[in-house]
Amino acid sequence: MSEPDSQSQEQITVVLPDGSELEVASDATVEDCAYEIGPGLGRDTVAGKLDGELVAKEEPVYDGVELEIVTDGSEEYLEVMRHSAAHCLAQAVERHYDDVDLAIGPPTDEGFYYDFDNLDVDEEDLAALEDEIEAIIAEDYEIEREDVSIEEAEERLAGEPYKLELLEEFADENDTVTFYKQGEWEDLCAGPHVDSTGEIGVVELLEIAGAYWRGDEENTMQTRIYGTAFEDESDLEDFLERKQEAEKRDHRRIGNEMNLFSIQDVTGPGLPLYHPPGKTVLKELEDFVEDLNKDAGYDYVETPHVFKTDLWHRSGHYENYQDDMFIFDVGDDEFGLKPMNCPGHAAIFQDQSWSYRDLPIRYAENGKVYRKEQRGELSGLSRVWAFTIDDGHLFIRPDQIRQEVEEIMDMITDVLETFDLEYEMALATRPEKSVGSDEIWDRAEEQLENVLENRAHDYEVEEGDGAFYGPKIDFAFEDAIGRSWDGPTVQLDFNMPERFDLNYVGEDNEEHRPVMIHRALYGSYERFFMMLIEHYEGRFPLWLAPEQVRVLPISDDNLGYAHRVANEFDDFRVEVDGRDSTLERKIRAAHDDRVPYQIIVGDNEEDDGNISVRDRFEDQEYDVEIEDFKQHLEAEIEEQRTQPDFLQD
Amino acid sequence: MSEPDSQSQEQITVVLPDGSELEVASDATVEDCAYEIGPGLGRDTVAGKLDGELVAKEEPVYDGVELEIVTDGSEEYLEVMRHSAAHCLAQAVERHYDDVDLAIGPPTDEGFYYDFDNLDVDEEDLAALEDEIEAIIAEDYEIEREDVSIEEAEERLAGEPYKLELLEEFADENDTVTFYKQGEWEDLCAGPHVDSTGEIGVVELLEIAGAYWRGDEENTMQTRIYGTAFEDESDLEDFLERKQEAEKRDHRRIGNEMNLFSIQDVTGPGLPLYHPPGKTVLKELEDFVEDLNKDAGYDYVETPHVFKTDLWHRSGHYENYQDDMFIFDVGDDEFGLKPMNCPGHAAIFQDQSWSYRDLPIRYAENGKVYRKEQRGELSGLSRVWAFTIDDGHLFIRPDQIRQEVEEIMDMITDVLETFDLEYEMALATRPEKSVGSDEIWDRAEEQLENVLENRAHDYEVEEGDGAFYGPKIDFAFEDAIGRSWDGPTVQLDFNMPERFDLNYVGEDNEEHRPVMIHRALYGSYERFFMMLIEHYEGRFPLWLAPEQVRVLPISDDNLGYAHRVANEFDDFRVEVDGRDSTLERKIRAAHDDRVPYQIIVGDNEEDDGNISVRDRFEDQEYDVEIEDFKQHLEAEIEEQRTQPDFLQD
Repeated sequence: MSEPDSQSQEQITVVLPDGSELEVASDATVEDCAYEIGPGLGRDTVAGKLDGELVAKEEPVYDGVELEIVTDGSEEYLEVMRHSAAHCLAQAVERHYDDVDLAIGPPTDEGFYYDFDNLDVDEEDLAALEDEIEAIIAEDYEIEREDVSIEEAEERLAGEPYKLELLEEFADENDTVTFYKQGEWEDLCAGPHVDSTGEIGVVELLEIAGAYWRGDEENTMQTRIYGTAFEDESDLEDFLERKQEAEKRDHRRIGNEMNLFSIQDVTGPGLPLYHPPGKTVLKELEDFVEDLNKDAGYDYVETPHVFKTDLWHRSGHYENYQDDMFIFDVGDDEFGLKPMNCPGHAAIFQDQSWSYRDLPIRYAENGKVYRKEQRGELSGLSRVWAFTIDDGHLFIRPDQIRQEVEEIMDMITDVLETFDLEYEMALATRPEKSVGSDEIWDRAEEQLENVLENRAHDYEVEEGDGAFYGPKIDFAFEDAIGRSWDGPTVQLDFNMPERFDLNYVGEDNEEHRPVMIHRALYGSYERFFMMLIEHYEGRFPLWLAPEQVRVLPISDDNLGYAHRVANEFDDFRVEVDGRDSTLERKIRAAHDDRVPYQIIVGDNEEDDGNISVRDRFEDQEYDVEIEDFKQHLEAEIEEQRTQPDFLQD
Repeated sequence: MSEPDSQSQEQITVVLPDGSELEVASDATVEDCAYEIGPGLGRDTVAGKLDGELVAKEEPVYDGVELEIVTDGSEEYLEVMRHSAAHCLAQAVERHYDDVDLAIGPPTDEGFYYDFDNLDVDEEDLAALEDEIEAIIAEDYEIEREDVSIEEAEERLAGEPYKLELLEEFADENDTVTFYKQGEWEDLCAGPHVDSTGEIGVVELLEIAGAYWRGDEENTMQTRIYGTAFEDESDLEDFLERKQEAEKRDHRRIGNEMNLFSIQDVTGPGLPLYHPPGKTVLKELEDFVEDLNKDAGYDYVETPHVFKTDLWHRSGHYENYQDDMFIFDVGDDEFGLKPMNCPGHAAIFQDQSWSYRDLPIRYAENGKVYRKEQRGELSGLSRVWAFTIDDGHLFIRPDQIRQEVEEIMDMITDVLETFDLEYEMALATRPEKSVGSDEIWDRAEEQLENVLENRAHDYEVEEGDGAFYGPKIDFAFEDAIGRSWDGPTVQLDFNMPERFDLNYVGEDNEEHRPVMIHRALYGSYERFFMMLIEHYEGRFPLWLAPEQVRVLPISDDNLGYAHRVANEFDDFRVEVDGRDSTLERKIRAAHDDRVPYQIIVGDNEEDDGNISVRDRFEDQEYDVEIEDFKQHLEAEIEEQRTQPDFLQD
């Protein structure tokens, strides 16, 4: 609208992390911007982030973009280096094997991989490839970036069918593509990369796996080699140690050892079957939140797993989520397995008329949802097709936000503390595109901030990171080996009440829109259960343990007494090891089965009418009165103590 | 194979109800056979049953058929008469309305209906049609049966599109069809019918509904008129009384009044949503069987609702049940919602190896199953697409059948007696076609008979009525208004263990097949819940009541005391009626809401620190100590008493 001035037409503005603005020429690259800020930074620039996306330093910036410069001191440097390490892996493979077809080779959270077709390699070959990578690093090739026309790219990639397939897609929107070259080897690649192979620290190849081209099971199965790279040996060693620790705790192995669950070919992928011990743990988890929910005034409801897609049209999920849904026709109508529980709860709320006096209304449901993840992504209980959320939806007046969120926060922290999980909290506020009036957003954010400020725990504010339909508070927590997990979320929602035309009659006799809150304490039972298995290495607290106490008769003569003792403990989950075996073996078996307490009974115990108690830390106490131990067990369960402590006080 | 003799070629054998055989000419009709037995029976014959199917007396019999003669003393006579009444209805309609198209008009369990197209009629018009039917009965037309060639039938049915459509199907397999004619009116019909309209007793038209042609929602919606007929006025009155009683108890209406559940257009047909009060009742039902299951040594498991159809191929459901299943593709694989829980439980059992010492293994699950009923058949909670079974599957040794079935019978009768349901039992034995050895069948049937004989309750034996895969014990029970319902079943299964190749290692160190038992205590929660709603007319026993106690303050001044009293009762499901209203109205509301107990508090109660208690029989007691009433409530719930009895002792 304002008069254009000749200067500004050639200048654009980029926004730096501290919020300041930088005017640069309209054809400036990331690196140009860095030099504009200072020549030192210019020289140190490895890559950049444009609106959060990692790009090569040669990429042009654009008007209004949020720019971050990546140097070797940045968090993202490792990602850049690992991408270059992936190139070294492919180069090493092509030095060692003929006629290999290259697919893709990106960095990952923990390292990198490269996918190959027509490559016959096994774990024993990895050492030789590692040596070759080391040589490539020692040879310190410059990593050169080059703009190449589509036609020339086609020539260079002749004989690389997967690369040509990728090129074809780029060609639709671009005249040129970029190649990265190091020594005799080059690759179609957008980058970014470090300046030379010598800048890569240490590389370790980890494993070989099969992977479908583009993750689609209809495509060829290729060979994926996983590796990782760090700046120095000690970082790598720390990583390998953590990795080993995580593998020792792998919930798939422990789940199998403890007979917690199975995922079978015949029953289908991503669809866990819970065996009795696993269902026992789940049931305890369900009962725990049920008690919390009841105390907090939630009412349980039950909704179908299948709905007519009319419901998903109304809720907006059909528009935004249908690719992840299982949808099928019945007659002329379309039905879908529910990917979320909220629309069903909104439908129940909508079925009645409400007064302001009735609110808050709080619905809870252990609701199974179904999301169609890629088959290749499915893994144990951590990525599944069907999972159960300990879901809760509140329908409240805008003036009730603070009080209700306060209560939910208490419930969430109660859960996290029960499992000894350290947590962090963040408030995500209104994004640029959002629904709902200024008034409701301001009022809501103010109440959320009040809640957070009143808690004796730090929190962060993530400006503009809220959902378009409302602000939220996110939790993240850390498990026993320091891994960070996304935790529960308290999500306000101004959109669903509009879509479902939800109303209550206010004190003024007019209709008003309630605010909806989505919340879960665990989130997905499956994911939380998986995390708990790994967090505790299967050594669950007594209240969760599938088998709480095992009675071990020292000899067959004590079997009768063992069963009488077990009967005394029939309020607990107790088994008798009545096998014809030595005590040592029985103790070993109970240990392997991760049973919190063993009761050992021999002639002495039988004569005295008492027991010996051994815990899973291998401490043992003799001459224990049955009644004393029972009382201890009751208290340990009641107080949900983390570890068996009868012998540890 | 044997030499044919000329006599036997013209003679065939029919089997009479007492098992005796009758030789008749090969072209004999039902009526001929009756005359053969005796001329009196011949004259009284109205219709016949051939292998259980009701047919006209003019139908020919065939060799080996089981024949029953139907006279006006037979159970089936009412069915024949009602079919004739349906014809009178159509005749009356065509006398009163022009250009009506006739569809079909069969008898039903409770009367008959006739479907019409192009008929504009409403409830007010039924009286005139009833008068016309009465006239047709008084006119006493002979009902004549006539064999008609397809060509002539086409001519007679010109202008009746639905009849012509039916005729076309008959024409594929027959040269002639039958017509029934009464006075000026005739209909394409297989019969049977009474001899004249004068033989029809009393007819009452009941209601008008819409119905799709052939039950298919893709077809035209026609007008269905329901009616019933009885031999005399007093039978009709009894029927109408029972019908009114059943309507008063209709679970759909009560479910809506008590906010128990809803079935909504937007969420889909046959897919109930349980609102908080309904889920409360369901949860109590779940907890009740959970306690029974735990005491009986069942372990809970949890299986997916969706399985790869590989599982259904293995179990045999795909072959026999796929039309009733919701099946859909995901990628190259086919998946289906589970119609039964047993294959999932078999898959869990199969995932481990077992010794004879481990058996019996008993799995329990509140498992949701999905069966694709016709949309038009769906009704409230009684016919749904998705329902939850309190399912249990046992894997046992053949020598454990008696003990395990004994225990299951105890659990089932415990459940039925808890709800004051009188029951009958029947043993269904080996049918002609069956799987499994003579030894296992004989051993199993003997054990089941032993179980039944040891119970202080009659039972019937239904020879040959077992499933092909095992014998079973069926329960049937009667509700408060004398309706009979199919009850729980204890089903032995020799087939599924074969299909899943289930094994345990016996004492002899060899592999053996376990026997499987399928059992449920309620069957479908949905159906049982529906039955309970109607059985109790929504006036649930205290332990099931969604709201157990309501506190009614006499005036606003007593509101504070009312809330303090409610707090004293917070172990129960208690509400305070704090509305600004008269006591009389509050009492009326609590009564309408079917709350078992009301606590009434006014100035007197507040001064004395006690309460008045009123029950839903409208009895009231003053000066009740809070503690006394609490103790009574606890006992009434603990003992699962059927009716509130604090004031009824």
